[in-house]
Amino acid sequence: MINDIIISEQKIIGTDGGPVYHGIKDSDIGFRGFGEVYFSFVKKNIIKGWKLHTKMTMNVVVPLGEIRFNFIDNREDSETFGNEFIINLSDKVNTRITIPSNLWFAFKGLRDQNMLVNIASIKHDPNEVISKKLNSVAFK
Amino acid sequence: MINDIIISEQKIIGTDGGPVYHGIKDSDIGFRGFGEVYFSFVKKNIIKGWKLHTKMTMNVVVPLGEIRFNFIDNREDSETFGNEFIINLSDKVNTRITIPSNLWFAFKGLRDQNMLVNIASIKHDPNEVISKKLNSVAFK
Repeated sequence: MINDIIISEQKIIGTDGGPVYHGIKDSDIGFRGFGEVYFSFVKKNIIKGWKLHTKMTMNVVVPLGEIRFNFIDNREDSETFGNEFIINLSDKVNTRITIPSNLWFAFKGLRDQNMLVNIASIKHDPNEVISKKLNSVAFK
Repeated sequence: MINDIIISEQKIIGTDGGPVYHGIKDSDIGFRGFGEVYFSFVKKNIIKGWKLHTKMTMNVVVPLGEIRFNFIDNREDSETFGNEFIINLSDKVNTRITIPSNLWFAFKGLRDQNMLVNIASIKHDPNEVISKKLNSVAFK
């Protein structure tokens, strides 16, 4: 496990016309302010990463498909420095994951259609994002 | 048209692994604060509605499928009181629509899979939502 990652199980409200998935409320555990929300599709067996945000807290849900995430703790002052954490999010359970800044992450689409939603604490800022090549670290 | 409805064309960023759709930023026109985000699926040819929020401003995008919206202005002090407005949102263009409070609305799924995202200015509160039966007003 990695300290400060928060896993929150959220409601799926079933209705005849189609279900409603909760994303995040401003009163939820892990909410760190609202800067931006965006939707990232990832094709089956494609991996996006590696990235690290130096400032942004991400709150991520997967209301469509299933996505596997890999995280690595890059915080030198963290008790879990260097640790890895792997989790699958999917539309079957509507788990939300709160991701503190300064973790490396990559994610892989597992079904034909997969969509990640990031409710980001700050707006996109290229100056706070670090990238490295996908093959520089093994995705598990 | 209905006064205070705002239509915003947003970016779709194409990448080999799957596109990224912008939702809303806290600096965007039409942003009225963040209370909650949720995802509402609507099956093909199903209509959800009618509803009216007395306090919430909705910012709605459709990153999956295509959804037709009907709005009716219920604000007695509005220059467009009683007017109707109809619009289709879809993943082809990523239009965001800002919907002020006190409009009646209903929406219909047009494809096999359709998902509406509401970035709501306040959290869900049953005391500020009014519903009426779908067949009480014709959906166009």
